[in-house]
Amino acid sequence: MAKEYVDIATLKYLLYEVHEVEELLSSERYQDYDKGSLDLFINSIKEFSDRELFPYFKEMDETPAIYKDGTIMVHKQVDVMMKKGGDMGIIAGPFDYGVGGLQLPFVIHTASAYIQEAANNHLPGYAGLTQGAAELIVHFADDALKETYVPKMLSGAWGGTMCLTEPQAGSSLSDITSKATPTEEDYYKISGQKIFISGGDHQYAENIVHLLLARIEGAPSGTKGISLFVVPKFRVAADGSLTKNDVVTVADFQKMGQRGYSTTHLGFGDNDDCQGWLVGKAHKGLKYMFLMMNSARISVGRGGAAISMAAYQASLEYANERPQGRKLSSDGKKDPDEKPCLIIEHPDVRRMLLLQKAIAEGSLSLVLLAAKYYDIIQSTKNLEEKEKYGLLLEMVIPIVKTYPTEAGSIAVSNGMQVLGGYGFCSDFILQQYYRDIRIFSIYEGTTGIQSQDLLGRKVPMDNGKALELLLTEILNTITVALEYEELRSSAKILGGKIKLTKEVLDFLMPFAKKGNYERYLSDANLFMEYLSHVVLGWLWLDIAVHAQRNLKEGGQTHSKAFYESKVHTMKFYFKYELPKTGSLAESLMHPDVLTIKSKKEVF
Amino acid sequence: MAKEYVDIATLKYLLYEVHEVEELLSSERYQDYDKGSLDLFINSIKEFSDRELFPYFKEMDETPAIYKDGTIMVHKQVDVMMKKGGDMGIIAGPFDYGVGGLQLPFVIHTASAYIQEAANNHLPGYAGLTQGAAELIVHFADDALKETYVPKMLSGAWGGTMCLTEPQAGSSLSDITSKATPTEEDYYKISGQKIFISGGDHQYAENIVHLLLARIEGAPSGTKGISLFVVPKFRVAADGSLTKNDVVTVADFQKMGQRGYSTTHLGFGDNDDCQGWLVGKAHKGLKYMFLMMNSARISVGRGGAAISMAAYQASLEYANERPQGRKLSSDGKKDPDEKPCLIIEHPDVRRMLLLQKAIAEGSLSLVLLAAKYYDIIQSTKNLEEKEKYGLLLEMVIPIVKTYPTEAGSIAVSNGMQVLGGYGFCSDFILQQYYRDIRIFSIYEGTTGIQSQDLLGRKVPMDNGKALELLLTEILNTITVALEYEELRSSAKILGGKIKLTKEVLDFLMPFAKKGNYERYLSDANLFMEYLSHVVLGWLWLDIAVHAQRNLKEGGQTHSKAFYESKVHTMKFYFKYELPKTGSLAESLMHPDVLTIKSKKEVF
Repeated sequence: MAKEYVDIATLKYLLYEVHEVEELLSSERYQDYDKGSLDLFINSIKEFSDRELFPYFKEMDETPAIYKDGTIMVHKQVDVMMKKGGDMGIIAGPFDYGVGGLQLPFVIHTASAYIQEAANNHLPGYAGLTQGAAELIVHFADDALKETYVPKMLSGAWGGTMCLTEPQAGSSLSDITSKATPTEEDYYKISGQKIFISGGDHQYAENIVHLLLARIEGAPSGTKGISLFVVPKFRVAADGSLTKNDVVTVADFQKMGQRGYSTTHLGFGDNDDCQGWLVGKAHKGLKYMFLMMNSARISVGRGGAAISMAAYQASLEYANERPQGRKLSSDGKKDPDEKPCLIIEHPDVRRMLLLQKAIAEGSLSLVLLAAKYYDIIQSTKNLEEKEKYGLLLEMVIPIVKTYPTEAGSIAVSNGMQVLGGYGFCSDFILQQYYRDIRIFSIYEGTTGIQSQDLLGRKVPMDNGKALELLLTEILNTITVALEYEELRSSAKILGGKIKLTKEVLDFLMPFAKKGNYERYLSDANLFMEYLSHVVLGWLWLDIAVHAQRNLKEGGQTHSKAFYESKVHTMKFYFKYELPKTGSLAESLMHPDVLTIKSKKEVF
Repeated sequence: MAKEYVDIATLKYLLYEVHEVEELLSSERYQDYDKGSLDLFINSIKEFSDRELFPYFKEMDETPAIYKDGTIMVHKQVDVMMKKGGDMGIIAGPFDYGVGGLQLPFVIHTASAYIQEAANNHLPGYAGLTQGAAELIVHFADDALKETYVPKMLSGAWGGTMCLTEPQAGSSLSDITSKATPTEEDYYKISGQKIFISGGDHQYAENIVHLLLARIEGAPSGTKGISLFVVPKFRVAADGSLTKNDVVTVADFQKMGQRGYSTTHLGFGDNDDCQGWLVGKAHKGLKYMFLMMNSARISVGRGGAAISMAAYQASLEYANERPQGRKLSSDGKKDPDEKPCLIIEHPDVRRMLLLQKAIAEGSLSLVLLAAKYYDIIQSTKNLEEKEKYGLLLEMVIPIVKTYPTEAGSIAVSNGMQVLGGYGFCSDFILQQYYRDIRIFSIYEGTTGIQSQDLLGRKVPMDNGKALELLLTEILNTITVALEYEELRSSAKILGGKIKLTKEVLDFLMPFAKKGNYERYLSDANLFMEYLSHVVLGWLWLDIAVHAQRNLKEGGQTHSKAFYESKVHTMKFYFKYELPKTGSLAESLMHPDVLTIKSKKEVF
């Protein structure tokens, strides 16, 4: 195991200097907080993660969550995470005071979860899904359900899950067949099978509260006939006592990574005795679920960013300690009598490390940006501002879900390569990060689904207004960057990418206008990769602008070397990563159509 | 498990039509073979792989090779592979009749090993390293050593290994410290530690013959003082009886993938009783080792190509069976009352499958090309031809080692994505391919080392003659392709890449000329990726040329749809992959130098 897994200095730099999170504190919602209290919270989470999460990370991989006698047996730290973490507010953090929350800015909650996830990505999901389930109840359910479930969930005593996927439907939620039958009581009878349910069961939870999508008998077909239910593992009597609710843990899924995080197959109502309570109105379930999906997707991107960072720290530590090989002399030879150098001296190792750094820190900045948008929407009383940041959030969400997870896999792979053969060995931690991070571009909507969302829904949203707002934000940063000589050429290059983006869309849009949506969306994944790289170029330029400002004005929060490293990494991004937009645009505007209607024999 | 793991039709198309392997048979060396006998051999290997290799692939991952009581316990199929495979000639295949070989063309041996590796990549290494070790003995050792060891190795009764890496040195062979002390007998006393020794020990081998690099006392420092020794696990007496040779299996390495393939830590001479026999001359060990390295590097590329293909077959099978989601209608909506379509209908799934196909088949063509060059060198009596193909082989070797392994990882990752959440689950095979293939870009020289070799040694070789020869081969294919209207625009695009290659080198070469080798080589990895993509563009154009010719001339060996699929995949490569050369060239010619001499604080 490496000694460190996160870079708190960079996290705080991004929070306070780049994203100016303190500005949020002027709103009424967050008036009880100041920078000092936020820092205290972050520091306490770091200590908690150092003590309770990071030391068990490898062990949880080696002793995976496993199905045994009708339940899933998980590592003992799951209990610590839920109970001790619950006490510290890791679940209650962003909720309103009114329901027992801390009314913590979401961006600070995000920073906190990021630290936990970097320490041990097998654990935060248990708390995160409990939070998401509680959020659905708080927002859409009636007071009785709130009172019964929310306090126990926020404290970590009870777990929570999202039950969407079914074996026959996969990501196609319109094909959900789980059934809800009205009764004469206040509940429905529930029956059906749900798979891939993260945190769906474990021996430490007194109760698990499933937020489940099902179809009320006679409901319209497709996504418009899906309702949301609270289906607890144990029913709660008026006196608080618990009785079984005919929810059965059928099996687990053993996985390549995140092996400490239980993934379950649940059966509901096999004995016709499973009760579920409708949340909000009938047939509105998917709408409710998707209103909460933005924060879920930020969480997944956050996980990718966190694992990239942890892997970077591990690779960096190795590169700083491992002597091997020699530097080239001016005749292109190496002198065998010279002492071997540390591998961090080799340019190619530096390239891999800087790539890890550029992806890990850039991803973090992206995740924090989205969380900040989320906070502005939550806290502003200015309707115009609310709308603006609402659109910006919608626009970036699919990118936030995708870039840190896809680029994160590449970053971790490079990190493994830094260690050579050792990177592939179980004794070293890189191989675990490599396996763990791979799920992040699959769950909560695959990269393919996010890309369809980006190009199919977000780009055309409000007649292109969301995209226009995003491009304006980018242009604003470019304008500021042009004032610094050190950043001018990068700013100009990014300006060219705005123009290129419009060219790409001018090429694609006519397909949609002519009703050829299949063609319009056929290369949506490439567009995702394209726009992600532009957005990351923007975020890196923004990071460099703030660093350069501090360098010019003698900022004291961090060292000169710290600020210089940010400008250096921005330049790295602009040399090695941003150029990819050129080839992606070329592919996107290529006239050949090769993935539609070709014969089956093509494969 | 999927039902199929390899595409024999495509393999034969590449062998006989694209690479015209039958032309080799006119040489004296291969005069005993005709297409019929080659096909028989390939078919028997496929049957053997179907029966003895593929069914045990998953099991070998789940019951890894493991250290126990001083030896490594491996799966029982290792014995089958060595003995039955040995009987079939999978080890003896390419050797001369004179030493008990079959004098099989290396390209056919490569095709055979490719099939085995696609079936179960945990097994062929045992045979492959035995072959490599035997090859060293045959080429460089005296007759006594040959007679003692080679027959037992070619039959599979004894294993063989290459012992290069030491704990303190890693890839830096100049830092090897294993010691050889001369004695009054014909042997040296050997002492030292070797790690990462593939197939270094297992319970089925009567004996294991280690080809070991060590330093004779008083030898010059660096790579010029390294000698090669035969160090058997058991010494062989004149009557053939075996006695222990003080070679100890110290430990194993548990790994993320290829878990059925034992990776060992060996100790030599702990009790001062380890005898080793010098191969060839003192201090020439590394030279001998590297003369054999080309075939070893072809083997690693072959493994990458094989796993990509197996993963493609598994993804394709899933995509053809799994119904999920619906196609978009002309209003951009989906009709929930329509039956779900198979996922192979979705353009993005097709894109991922075609990417897998383009990489898997392109990689195979590259590997076969190198093997064919190898055969020409072995069999031609024309010195000019021998020199030409010698240079071409040297030029492509680092690419053959690298492209199928690096692009292969990407292909397999896309294959996993095709399966969504199931791809990440242990019940499905994609996750195993994903873990297994990752080692291939590390062993036998990492991608970083191959890239240094490509740009540092191969490009400047013979004043650039090797590269010139390669570019001429590419131009020849372009010239032929221009004759077919269907291929003309692709041919022109590839022509532009020849020009771009020269621009890139015109930018880089002056650094080398001014003695700034560190700068010249600092982005060697990018150059590798760049040139690989150009070479694959060439190979795909060549595949399409042969397909188009068959389509025009009514070739009957394969169906019309088969030939069309090759042209289609070439177009896919030119739309989605070849454009990457543009952004890579942009990065390569970027003026910023960011990975040399920057301060340590940059990380």
